[in-house]
Amino acid sequence: MKRYLGIDIGGTFIKGAVVEESGKILADSKIATEASLGSAAILNNISSLCDELLALSALTTGDISGIGIGVPGLINAEAGTIVYSDNLGLRDFELAKNVSTLYSLPVKIANDANAAALGEAKFGVGKLYKNIVMLTLGTGVGGGIIIDGKIVEGNCGAGAELGHSVIDFGGELCSCGRRGCLEAYASATALIRDTKRAMQKNPDSLMWQIGSLDMVTGKTPFDFSDKDVVARSVTDAYIEKLACGIVNFSNTLRPEAIILGGGVCAQGDSLIRPLKKILDAEIYAEKRGPEVKLLVAELGNKAGSLGAAALFMD
Amino acid sequence: MKRYLGIDIGGTFIKGAVVEESGKILADSKIATEASLGSAAILNNISSLCDELLALSALTTGDISGIGIGVPGLINAEAGTIVYSDNLGLRDFELAKNVSTLYSLPVKIANDANAAALGEAKFGVGKLYKNIVMLTLGTGVGGGIIIDGKIVEGNCGAGAELGHSVIDFGGELCSCGRRGCLEAYASATALIRDTKRAMQKNPDSLMWQIGSLDMVTGKTPFDFSDKDVVARSVTDAYIEKLACGIVNFSNTLRPEAIILGGGVCAQGDSLIRPLKKILDAEIYAEKRGPEVKLLVAELGNKAGSLGAAALFMD
Repeated sequence: MKRYLGIDIGGTFIKGAVVEESGKILADSKIATEASLGSAAILNNISSLCDELLALSALTTGDISGIGIGVPGLINAEAGTIVYSDNLGLRDFELAKNVSTLYSLPVKIANDANAAALGEAKFGVGKLYKNIVMLTLGTGVGGGIIIDGKIVEGNCGAGAELGHSVIDFGGELCSCGRRGCLEAYASATALIRDTKRAMQKNPDSLMWQIGSLDMVTGKTPFDFSDKDVVARSVTDAYIEKLACGIVNFSNTLRPEAIILGGGVCAQGDSLIRPLKKILDAEIYAEKRGPEVKLLVAELGNKAGSLGAAALFMD
Repeated sequence: MKRYLGIDIGGTFIKGAVVEESGKILADSKIATEASLGSAAILNNISSLCDELLALSALTTGDISGIGIGVPGLINAEAGTIVYSDNLGLRDFELAKNVSTLYSLPVKIANDANAAALGEAKFGVGKLYKNIVMLTLGTGVGGGIIIDGKIVEGNCGAGAELGHSVIDFGGELCSCGRRGCLEAYASATALIRDTKRAMQKNPDSLMWQIGSLDMVTGKTPFDFSDKDVVARSVTDAYIEKLACGIVNFSNTLRPEAIILGGGVCAQGDSLIRPLKKILDAEIYAEKRGPEVKLLVAELGNKAGSLGAAALFMD
């Protein structure tokens, strides 16, 4: 059975795992990214992590068939380069070539959110399906599209930016510069913004029991939504907008399943049930068309490394 | 060289062609659909058309490798069935099996807009590219997604419904029941609606020179946009909303090209130039990412038959 190194570069940590074709993780670890020290330091840390993973699993490079890497930012998958990464402070960096030279192994790279989507699709909650859209609801809204078991990488492998799709023309300003993007409503950041706004407008909201605006998290409005109409209006609006994006992707791509990831998903059924209700009611052709399942990601922060390794498993 | 029959079923006519693998059309013709007469009549007309195409090209079924059919409505491509077609008045009709029995040839079916997209992608303006989104701006907004040269058919081949993606939450009512879909702004129907509204609000608009509201077509506001601020406001708003959808699909799928089809495209540069300007300015990562080209379809009403035949050409 073939084995791969799956590396998931984040702004703070680089995570990695030795992954068998079956999806079994033989070893995993992480190391600080040290992005502020520049490309040589990042490369050195990737290398230290790879060495550690090999040592932990008692393997040598000869036992490994390839190294897959997920990168936060705009990449060119064909060229193996990081075109631009805000998080890493890198531009036009030949990542694949550099890592490949160090280990004499083939290296493939992908956008990190796309890689995580592939991980969930191949080894997580999506493993029964071949056509999947994954949305990760975090600081932003990322994700990936899997068609016939493969990432839709787009032109030059620039990756799918699912959060930057306008659902409310002229609406909230998004980090990308447009107004009304899904990310500007469905990210944890947006949920926190809307919760604070609602509290400021409603001094009597029970949500003030948390102490102050600084204590607001994405959990706050859900914690109070059963007993506080203000909190309920925030969660209702959040669910409506997120559902709008989910129905859009369902109509556009008609996947077998949409997978939601990110902290907000800890809300479980109180989030998923109303979303599914809207999805079933509003999807094009309703019940006459095939159902789109709505699932919660299950691999957590291992999805990235698994998906990076899965870049080699067609 | 292999040859296929490509059949494009419309609400009024069934069009068809004998197509070589090269995309060369050896013969083409059409016949009335007679949808109101039921499934047996439709099937009979498809058969008559196929017979005529064979006669016109002096071929027999032995010279043909397969029959591809584009269908207006929700289909199950895997099962070869029409699940539901408003235009044809059909439900759960085994189209592929019926046609296959008649000619002892393999039959593949696709949504008609998806098939037309494949035709343009393979033999039309998109032939240099492998990743394409096509939007057809007509009575509605249809289209298709081509990834790696293949139609994205989705779960059970239900097809991509690109027009039914909300861009303006809570906005104009769409034929699908949701509010704010791209179709409710970017179809010729929407353009005509908005032109009439603008004229009714502005009795001094030069557009009244056409005579009456009944004379309004999608061409009207473009004809007057250079000399009439009311007409200009209609075309500007149309272009803004259509551009919004184009940027959304560009960010989500990062195709090499987006192809526009349908009557509105006759406006040429006065439509394409401002759309491209917005696309270049608003696409995620702007000039750092790969360009998305914006092209006008060139096959006209032959795209459907060519794309239907191309269902066999992987």
